Amino acid sequence: MQPMTFRFPVSSRFGDEPADPVGDLFSVLSRGDIISFAGGIPDGALFDVDPIRDSFEFVLGRHARRALQYGATPGEPELRAAAAALVSRHLPTAPEDILVTSGSQEGIYLSAQALLSPGDVVLVEEPTYLAAVQAFSLNGAKLVGVAADAEGMLPEALDEAIAEHAPRFVYLIPTFANPSGKTMGRRRREAIAEILLRAQVALVEDDPYGQLRFSGEPVPPIASLPGMAEQTILLNSMSKVMAPGLRIGWMRVQGPLKQILGIAKSAVTLQSPALNQLAIAHYLTHHDLDAHIARVVGPYRERRDALHAGLLAILPATATVTRPDGGMFCWVTLGDDTDTARLLPVAVEEGVAFVPGWSFYASDPDRSTMRLSYATNSPDTIAEGLGRLAAALGR
Amino acid sequence: MQPMTFRFPVSSRFGDEPADPVGDLFSVLSRGDIISFAGGIPDGALFDVDPIRDSFEFVLGRHARRALQYGATPGEPELRAAAAALVSRHLPTAPEDILVTSGSQEGIYLSAQALLSPGDVVLVEEPTYLAAVQAFSLNGAKLVGVAADAEGMLPEALDEAIAEHAPRFVYLIPTFANPSGKTMGRRRREAIAEILLRAQVALVEDDPYGQLRFSGEPVPPIASLPGMAEQTILLNSMSKVMAPGLRIGWMRVQGPLKQILGIAKSAVTLQSPALNQLAIAHYLTHHDLDAHIARVVGPYRERRDALHAGLLAILPATATVTRPDGGMFCWVTLGDDTDTARLLPVAVEEGVAFVPGWSFYASDPDRSTMRLSYATNSPDTIAEGLGRLAAALGR
Repeated sequence: MQPMTFRFPVSSRFGDEPADPVGDLFSVLSRGDIISFAGGIPDGALFDVDPIRDSFEFVLGRHARRALQYGATPGEPELRAAAAALVSRHLPTAPEDILVTSGSQEGIYLSAQALLSPGDVVLVEEPTYLAAVQAFSLNGAKLVGVAADAEGMLPEALDEAIAEHAPRFVYLIPTFANPSGKTMGRRRREAIAEILLRAQVALVEDDPYGQLRFSGEPVPPIASLPGMAEQTILLNSMSKVMAPGLRIGWMRVQGPLKQILGIAKSAVTLQSPALNQLAIAHYLTHHDLDAHIARVVGPYRERRDALHAGLLAILPATATVTRPDGGMFCWVTLGDDTDTARLLPVAVEEGVAFVPGWSFYASDPDRSTMRLSYATNSPDTIAEGLGRLAAALGR
Repeated sequence: MQPMTFRFPVSSRFGDEPADPVGDLFSVLSRGDIISFAGGIPDGALFDVDPIRDSFEFVLGRHARRALQYGATPGEPELRAAAAALVSRHLPTAPEDILVTSGSQEGIYLSAQALLSPGDVVLVEEPTYLAAVQAFSLNGAKLVGVAADAEGMLPEALDEAIAEHAPRFVYLIPTFANPSGKTMGRRRREAIAEILLRAQVALVEDDPYGQLRFSGEPVPPIASLPGMAEQTILLNSMSKVMAPGLRIGWMRVQGPLKQILGIAKSAVTLQSPALNQLAIAHYLTHHDLDAHIARVVGPYRERRDALHAGLLAILPATATVTRPDGGMFCWVTLGDDTDTARLLPVAVEEGVAFVPGWSFYASDPDRSTMRLSYATNSPDTIAEGLGRLAAALGR
């Protein structure tokens, strides 16, 4: 008798045919011969390499034993203090209200784990960040999409959805959203906050891009509006403004939930790397993140202009394109019967890639949508890529 | 009317009064005036600092853009290759069977998330690693302890427990276990493997300490026994042999579960830091980890001897003490009616700390047990600490 071939059991958390859209994205990105608008990555050519190297040299030269050792679960005190100072520009924050995470992805995951019981509803904007949807789903959430306009989630739709679904929390990226590039203005934020305060519903406010503004006026986070600080988990990341390869972000949260989040963090990764935390703390206190961001947003603005104008020139008259004031993404709605998931292989044949929009929807996707990032390509390369996209659309 | 004070909802995953034994441990450790046997940390004075610093300088000097950028979810190719070469000393392993994790804690967590549906049973040795218990519980597991002797889990008890509970997997630390310091001999491993193969039950084999051997003969992992490779998730870590502050470990797993684990990893931390991965890969290929370990285990053996002999000298005649051939821990069973959780504050008053044993049990704890690490204290300090412990026991 042949021995049975062993197959690991798989948790019911994962559906019958689990998809890995994020992993699939990264494999598309690794092809060298295509112009990719698919990434959600910063331009490595703009990294502040010398000061970062200096920061690691300093820490490994002076504090190696500590940097290489276990540390405290909530994070190294120096980084918690530096992060608190950054957050305090909008919202007074003590170092003990900062919990360091391994990128803001871990912050999203820990928020879900701490707050969600199986079957709980999370309200999200349509479309929204797909890896957040994955993190919520794996923690048993039922995702409900809420209608949005050009400024993001609609207050009246939120009000109705809260009444109908009694959600555990609302997840928003109010500034330069992924994938839509949209930003909520101050009045919209106030309207959203008023509803959340009245209904006593928690907010998970994801803000990895907010500092990457190249036009328009800064708008403070919803967490900074009166009453919202104690009701919001605010997530920031060093990935988009400094370096994703360090995998450091943080959560800003006050009150007893911090203890639960600490237990969750202990079980998931124990701690984030002390070395990376101390090097980033050194960078934030001895180098100039603002000056670095100022150098980055100039090229990003040019690229946004090139992508936005170029898209308008090649797309059908039914199409709309968002024009973000920061961040990395333009969001296209073709507004016809095109399925961008079927367009993608044609586009890749032509030598260009984007992300089909369907995967960013919690339900009822508009399949004529796609996400394009301008962050990593020069205006010339963007023009070349759009020529290829036009050819793909023509086929 | 006073506004209601907002309280975040907390997931039902966390009990009514969630404990944080790991976090509590780290806060005890941070006191400077006590001699601590409580840690589970390597001795920072023995870190291989210069070659580690060299490895970071090399990567940040030559490959900064890549090291600071997003990478692939399963890990950087160089580290997967270097890890596969290490694992292949016992068990032929391809780089694609390595999934890099943020410490072996993330490996434990992802294993639980991938395999467990709520209510599933996990079999563990009694006592076992408490942060693993937390990771399993947060993923909905029911933990069932299996009886052990001086070599760890008893095959006949495992057989009965499988028949009774139909577990999703068995979790073992077969070499220099945390907390017990026990090691399974080859025959015991074969007996355990035979049962798991017959019953077709998966094994999560946690091996963070195996390379830290200072006496006795090496025993290969259970995963390397015939038939077990495809049925086992083998977890390794750089934390105990190199530096915990880098937060890098890996899972060795073959077959379709890799895809599920990749999805899980994407949702939890997206990726482990590319910089840390590339620096460790450089260290493993350009420096000598074996030589470093050889330098570390000499002092660890002396300290084991000092702690083991010293404990025997001060403990009551009812007590037993394990004498590990590697790793970091001696496990004491006082064998009387002492509750070590009540002994601890007395010990701290005397200026010495250990970990009370109750928290390492899935059920029915022996409250006269405690875990003591010898890794970070010199023989003289160990003698002084034991004097204080004797005073505490005398009170």
